[in-house]
This record gives sequence, structure tokens and C-alpha cells, in this order.
Amino acid sequence: MAAKTDHALERLVFFSDAVFAIAITLLIIEIPVPHLPHGASDLAHLQALADLTASFVGYFISFTVIGLFWMGHHRAFTLAAHYHPRILGWNIALLAVIAFMPFATAYSSANWFERVPTITYCATMLLAAALNFQTNRTATSPPMVGATVDPQDVRYVRQRGLAVVLGSATAVVAAAFLSPKLGQMALASIPLRRFLLVRLAK
Amino acid sequence: MAAKTDHALERLVFFSDAVFAIAITLLIIEIPVPHLPHGASDLAHLQALADLTASFVGYFISFTVIGLFWMGHHRAFTLAAHYHPRILGWNIALLAVIAFMPFATAYSSANWFERVPTITYCATMLLAAALNFQTNRTATSPPMVGATVDPQDVRYVRQRGLAVVLGSATAVVAAAFLSPKLGQMALASIPLRRFLLVRLAK
Amino acid sequence: MAAKTDHALERLVFFSDAVFAIAITLLIIEIPVPHLPHGASDLAHLQALADLTASFVGYFISFTVIGLFWMGHHRAFTLAAHYHPRILGWNIALLAVIAFMPFATAYSSANWFERVPTITYCATMLLAAALNFQTNRTATSPPMVGATVDPQDVRYVRQRGLAVVLGSATAVVAAAFLSPKLGQMALASIPLRRFLLVRLAK
Amino acid sequence: MAAKTDHALERLVFFSDAVFAIAITLLIIEIPVPHLPHGASDLAHLQALADLTASFVGYFISFTVIGLFWMGHHRAFTLAAHYHPRILGWNIALLAVIAFMPFATAYSSANWFERVPTITYCATMLLAAALNFQTNRTATSPPMVGATVDPQDVRYVRQRGLAVVLGSATAVVAAAFLSPKLGQMALASIPLRRFLLVRLAK
Repeated sequence: MAAKTDHALERLVFFSDAVFAIAITLLIIEIPVPHLPHGASDLAHLQALADLTASFVGYFISFTVIGLFWMGHHRAFTLAAHYHPRILGWNIALLAVIAFMPFATAYSSANWFERVPTITYCATMLLAAALNFQTNRTATSPPMVGATVDPQDVRYVRQRGLAVVLGSATAVVAAAFLSPKLGQMALASIPLRRFLLVRLAK
Repeated sequence: MAAKTDHALERLVFFSDAVFAIAITLLIIEIPVPHLPHGASDLAHLQALADLTASFVGYFISFTVIGLFWMGHHRAFTLAAHYHPRILGWNIALLAVIAFMPFATAYSSANWFERVPTITYCATMLLAAALNFQTNRTATSPPMVGATVDPQDVRYVRQRGLAVVLGSATAVVAAAFLSPKLGQMALASIPLRRFLLVRLAK
Repeated sequence: MAAKTDHALERLVFFSDAVFAIAITLLIIEIPVPHLPHGASDLAHLQALADLTASFVGYFISFTVIGLFWMGHHRAFTLAAHYHPRILGWNIALLAVIAFMPFATAYSSANWFERVPTITYCATMLLAAALNFQTNRTATSPPMVGATVDPQDVRYVRQRGLAVVLGSATAVVAAAFLSPKLGQMALASIPLRRFLLVRLAK
Repeated sequence: MAAKTDHALERLVFFSDAVFAIAITLLIIEIPVPHLPHGASDLAHLQALADLTASFVGYFISFTVIGLFWMGHHRAFTLAAHYHPRILGWNIALLAVIAFMPFATAYSSANWFERVPTITYCATMLLAAALNFQTNRTATSPPMVGATVDPQDVRYVRQRGLAVVLGSATAVVAAAFLSPKLGQMALASIPLRRFLLVRLAK
């Protein structure tokens, strides 16, 4: 029986991993490929690539963001030892928002620095952060959490989850009330901040 | 030999999982991304998003529906202990209809509340439900079912499968003979009903 | 050391499974979704769906064909016990042709019953069949084949592989020298023949 | 504890495998499908396919290139025995560049033999090669590398990684300073060179 519920947990994780991996890889197909007339100058090509700057930046931000959510998901589920149906609804809702990210990214990149697209992107991230927090909290609470898990590990997962919620909420507020540019800069700084954190933690 | 047939079963499940995960994540790329001229007003952006309401609703319904079929598939295959070639045809037919869902969703969302698109969507779901029932019945019948499986678990899988068939058939009939709106409302209520069921079952 | 090479084999199979699963699920996104003006008649919708008949038929044929290649791939690799780099080139070439199938399917469906598209599709299948035969022959030959494998199982894998090569070659010849319709009918009969075979084998 | 870190490593590898497999299979959907008017001549169809030569060549080159990076990734991670967070940043950066390849391939194929697109493709490959080298170096260094790993295996992984960096750098330089044709020929020769290497190594 224990083996059976463990198997159910493993499958849920496998399915979630696959959705994260597909969503992260689908980001690229939303970027339109420039088709210039034969013999177009190098300058015209550089201009065409420069016009896609927002798409490239959006791609790398969302790649990092989905990658970080995936890592958080795993960190939490490593602490879970038992399957419980309570996790299903939160997890599928989280996956639905993650799989929605390619749309939010493409919309925000195609309308760079505009208020509504930026808020849409930040709000999608805030929703993902909230569902991520709730999913990971459920996975690291009884009856799912493993008996021998260090409470400090659980605290760490939740504090990080909460930090992401607060960060996304700040980006939404900045984009909505101050300026879309500020919201987008807050987002663009995420990969950098993460990189610094990993460097410092070494 | 037993290990070998178990391995064949495991691979079939892995392949099926992957198709479910890809189909569910592909739903998003059928939603067209609004490209507004630079400097478009916030109102114009909100209008562009509002025009996609049907696509967003369709996305979340289909995400939930495919997610539920995936869960049902797993619940059934957890009870199977032996591989038998008889499952192959039904399973591949089920996967073909699941992988067809992004098309049915996009067609129905692009032509919201129209009779033919709604019936197409409901009929796709009915076909998926019927193949799901037959696949899961085969997986939970001899010679595939495990020797120590509780008959009540088998009954539960089949009753749920039958409930989905009846629900989809009702939606088809409602959409065809009464009104497309009724059919689509029946579909839209699925995630809600599921959520309530999980809450109640806790 | 043995465990390590087994692991390499397992990963090759996992990677191949994933490519098969993605290629089979990508088939759907090549079918264009009809967008009719609001209030279009039911008849106009039925006509729009009827115009996609070739796409739907192509989808189901290719889904079955890729599914059958996947099953053959697995049947062969179940008999392999050791990894050898010799398999890599053939396997990646096979996967490249399988991943090419969504293009061949879309091209042949968009230009139904035309000679060149039909030959393109049949030739892609013939190439897949030839690479499939060679890949599976390598996996079921020394040094890869398991020591305790029944020679009859090996013979079965190869005979089936050869049958697919001959069938595809016949379809190419029929499409090229007789009529594209004949070639496409030969292809369309594959799912049916497979179904009958499975029924008879029960 | 050891089992737990091994599990983290296994998951990282699974996630990476999935991204490689999806990126390689997505290559095909960037190739536009020719839709000719009904009754178009065979010659018109052959011309339409001939116009896609660059896309087909690009498809097969990128398929091989991503396949080779995948193999190198696996060869390296087979030698790793312990998980360390240091690998995460490099690995996600590598995956982001691999997932970017469908765009670079489509852009370079749509503008065949033009300088900027060719340099873009070669530079993407150079970046992938550099990140691949760094990722694999981290996976085969303490504290990640297995205690019983043969130093010759580690040296082999790094030398191959370095060879790819140098080869890509040469292609960038050739494309930038000499001629885009030279750069593209250098790339086109990769699958051939690989094939010969495997043949010789047998």
C-alpha cells in the first residue's frame, strides 16, 4: 500500500516535470522568425534582430522563471513521502498557469513596456507564485510530508515560496501604479539576483 | 518473464503520460497573441484580452479535462499488473483523441457558442470518454488486473469512467438539440464540479 | 560496469520514447483551425470541417504509423541487454525521420491525392521503415542482444520490420507509377490492417 | 542523504533530457508547409520542395547537433555521482541555448548564405558549446564526480567538449570574416564527420 501511494506521488512528479519541460521549451516558438528578402543588407538583418530584443529578453526571463519554479517544486516534493489527493487540485492549477506562461511572455514581449501586457505578465507570475506556495505547502505538510524530514528544510521551502509571492506582488504593484518599465525591470533582475544568490551560497 | 511484461506495461504508461503532458501543454499555442500598434491605449489592450475570453475559458476547461482523463488513466493502470497486447489498440486510440483536443478546443473557442463547433468539442470529449472507459476496463480486467486488487477499486474506476461517458453524452445532446450555450455551460462546470468533489472527499 | 552500460541503454530508450511521443502529439498543430465569421451557418461550419477531411485522415494515419514504429522500437529494445555506440547513428537518424513525419503529413494532407506530396509521404515512411529495420537489427544482434533471448523473438522483430519496409516500398511504387490515390489508399489501410491483426492475435 | 542527492541528480538529468528531446522535435514545426493550388503540376511541387532545401538541410544539421550535445551531456552526467547546486545555473543556461536552437535554425534557413543569420546560428552553437563545456566540467569535477571514476573518462569528456568549442569558434570566424558559405559548409560537415568518427571507432 505504501509502495502504491509512493508510486502515485512519483507519477504526479513525472507528469509535472514533463509539463514544466514542455512549457519552458515552447517559449521559443512564440518568437517570430525574420524572413528578409534575398540579398538584404547586414544592417537590415541586424535591425530585424534588434526589433526582437523584447522577445529575446522575455524568453530568457521566462526560461529562468519557469526553471526556478520547477526547482522549487522539486525541492518541496523531495520532502514529501506520501501521496494525498488534496495535492491534485493545487498542482494541476499550478501547471495550468505554468503552461500559460508562453502566452503571457509572447503578449508582453510583443507589446513591450505597455501597461496592460506588463501587468498581465506580472499577474500570471503572481498567480503561479501563489499556487506554487500552496502546492509546496501541501506537499510539505502532514499527511504528505516524510516522517524524518528536517523542519528547517520545510521552513526553507516555504520562506522561498513566500519570497517569490512577495516579489511578484511588488512587480504587479510597480507595473500598475508606478510604471510598466519599473515592473519589467523588476522581472529582468530575477535571473541576475538568482545568479548572485547561487554564487553567494557556494 | 514477469519482469519483462511489467516493463512493457511501464513503458506504455510512460509513453501515455508523455502524450497527455504534451497535449495539455500544447493547448496554449493555439491562442493567438494580440499584437497591438505601439502606444495603443490600455483600453484597447483590455479589449484585445476580453476578445480572447473564449480562448482562455476553453484553455482552462480543456486543461482540467485532459488532467482528469490523465488521472483516471493512472488510477486504472495502477491496478494493472500484467501487460497484454489487447490494451494497445484502445490505448493508442485514446491517445489519438487526447492529442486531438488542442484542435477541438481551438475550433470551439474561435467559434464560441456556435452549434457545430460546440458539438465537435463535446463529441471529441464523448469519444475520449468512451475510449477511456474501454481502455481502463481492459486494464482492470483479467488477464491484466493484479491478483490482489480490491474489487471495490475496480468498481470505482469503472463507475467514474461511466459517469464521464454519461456526462459527455448529455453535453452532446444538450448542445445539439437544445442550445450550444447549454452544452458549453455543462462543460464549463466540469472543473468546478471536480473541485467540489475533491473538497468533499477530503 | 554492466550497470553503467545498462543505464546508457535506458537513457537512449527514454530519449527515443520522448521524441516519438512529441512527434506524435505535434501532428495536431499542423491542422489549421477554421475561423468563421460570427453567425456563420451550421452548413458553413460543416463545410469547413469537411474541407479538412484530408488533414483528419492524415492525422489518424500518421498517429497510427508513428505509434506502430514506437511499438516496434520497444519490442526490439526489450531484447537488448547491452549498450553499444554502434546503435547511436542509426537511432538518431530514425528519430530525425520520425520527427520529420508531422511535416510530411501536413504537406501530403494539404495537397491530397497529388503525386509529389503522396510520394514524399510514402518515401518518408520508407526511409523510416529502413532505418527502423537497421536500428532494430542492431539492437537485437551481438554485442547488444541479451544472452538469454529467444531467437524466435529476434526473428519476429526482424520479419515485422522487413514487412513494413516492403509495405512502404509498395506504397511508394504504387503512388509513383500507378496513381497517388492507390498509394494513399495503401497507407489508409494500415490502421485497419493493424486492428485486424491485433483482433486475430487475441 | 546520499540517496536523496542522487535523486536530485536523476531529476535534473530527466528534466534536461526532456528539454533536449522537445527542442530537437520542435525543429520541424519551423519549416513552412507548401500549400499549392489544387491541380498544381508535379514540377511546381518539386520546385516548392526545392525551395525548402535550406530548411531541410538546417533541420538535419540541427537535429544532429542537438543530438550530439545531448549525448555529450549524458556521457558527462554518467560520471557524476553527487548533486551540487553549483551545476544548476550552468545547466539551465545550457538548456536555454539548446531550446533557442529552433529559432536560430529557422532564421538561418530562411536567410540561407546571408552573413548575419549564419553568424547568429554559429554564435548560438558556440555559446551552447561553451556552456556545455562548463556544465560537463562541473559535473565531472569534485564534489560531483564519482569516487571510482576513471580519470581518462573525465579527460575524454573535456577534450571532446573543448573540440566542439574550437570547431564552433572556427565556424563563427569563417562566417564572419571569410564568407557565410564557408561557415555553413563547416556546419554541414558536422553530421558527416561524426558519422565517420563513429565508423572509425567501431
